[in-house]
Amino acid sequence: MKYCSHCGSNEVEQKVPDGDNRLRYCCLKCETIFYENPKIVTGCLAQWQGKILLCKRAIEPRLGTWTLPAGFMENHETIQEAAARETFEAATAKISNLDLYTIYNLPHISQVYMIFRGDIEDGEASPGIESQETAFVDEAEVPWEELAFPVIRETLELYFQDRKNGIFTLHTGEITRKPDRNIKIIRY
Amino acid sequence: MKYCSHCGSNEVEQKVPDGDNRLRYCCLKCETIFYENPKIVTGCLAQWQGKILLCKRAIEPRLGTWTLPAGFMENHETIQEAAARETFEAATAKISNLDLYTIYNLPHISQVYMIFRGDIEDGEASPGIESQETAFVDEAEVPWEELAFPVIRETLELYFQDRKNGIFTLHTGEITRKPDRNIKIIRY
Repeated sequence: MKYCSHCGSNEVEQKVPDGDNRLRYCCLKCETIFYENPKIVTGCLAQWQGKILLCKRAIEPRLGTWTLPAGFMENHETIQEAAARETFEAATAKISNLDLYTIYNLPHISQVYMIFRGDIEDGEASPGIESQETAFVDEAEVPWEELAFPVIRETLELYFQDRKNGIFTLHTGEITRKPDRNIKIIRY
Repeated sequence: MKYCSHCGSNEVEQKVPDGDNRLRYCCLKCETIFYENPKIVTGCLAQWQGKILLCKRAIEPRLGTWTLPAGFMENHETIQEAAARETFEAATAKISNLDLYTIYNLPHISQVYMIFRGDIEDGEASPGIESQETAFVDEAEVPWEELAFPVIRETLELYFQDRKNGIFTLHTGEITRKPDRNIKIIRY
């Protein structure tokens, strides 16, 4: 942040405001404080006849890898609406029976992932603008080495494990990428 | 948003960017698009010897009313860390055994509330800078007419109801304030 979006001044710097304990972008001229907060990424494990919907990414990051339909929650919607919207945008698929399945913290990039299980009753799916391809896969068909993000692999692993056990429960945890690039996964 | 925080131009206007379907603040000069997303508010139902910790607000909005310790999740922390931090900041209280209890959408103000149950093992609490007063209360002692927000009342109602039934489960729902100021609560 180089300029104050409120008054246009270039006297913007990171400092700890009075009564606060964190660095914030502050305008020294009009004294506006700019807060930044984590974002929710939400999407679906969309089920159809025992298979799961995956989408091949047509956009960066990780263009060409496979993912669950998911994206940033928008203002003025519910998490459930956002998850359904992302599923439609990625795969032109209509999801129902949403049930919250995973909540994972990604503190190194200030994201919280919230993935729902749900059903695509008509089995209809085709690539939206952000996808090159869509596919319904069973466990053996998952392209495990071509998944987009560690949180997607983690979610799929939990899902197939729970399905074998015959019971789905809410899973929470955190995934961090350390400065040495190693991934650390903690299941709470 | 009046000025572009990237280039300082005052040619900022709300429009739907190419390939998007929502209004965003866009800089017409340097073409930066500014995204705004919902915020997570998190906090605790902090239990001690069968009572719950409430805090009397020393800050606006709703100064002087009672609330659960809660506040905005910050970048680079987990939801659980944020809930514990807010409990400490509001009431100098150390919480353990966090268990996610409620997730409520407040789409009219683009917030998601996530409240954890937890224990204050030593029963120690005293007002932090954002509180005038702290109190451990049982159901009969809750100042129901002086609670800060509908989501706080909803959370407390669910809690005391679950406690009577002897089982706590995750609750999800939404609370909206309509243009006529009426509150609508949906339990999913």
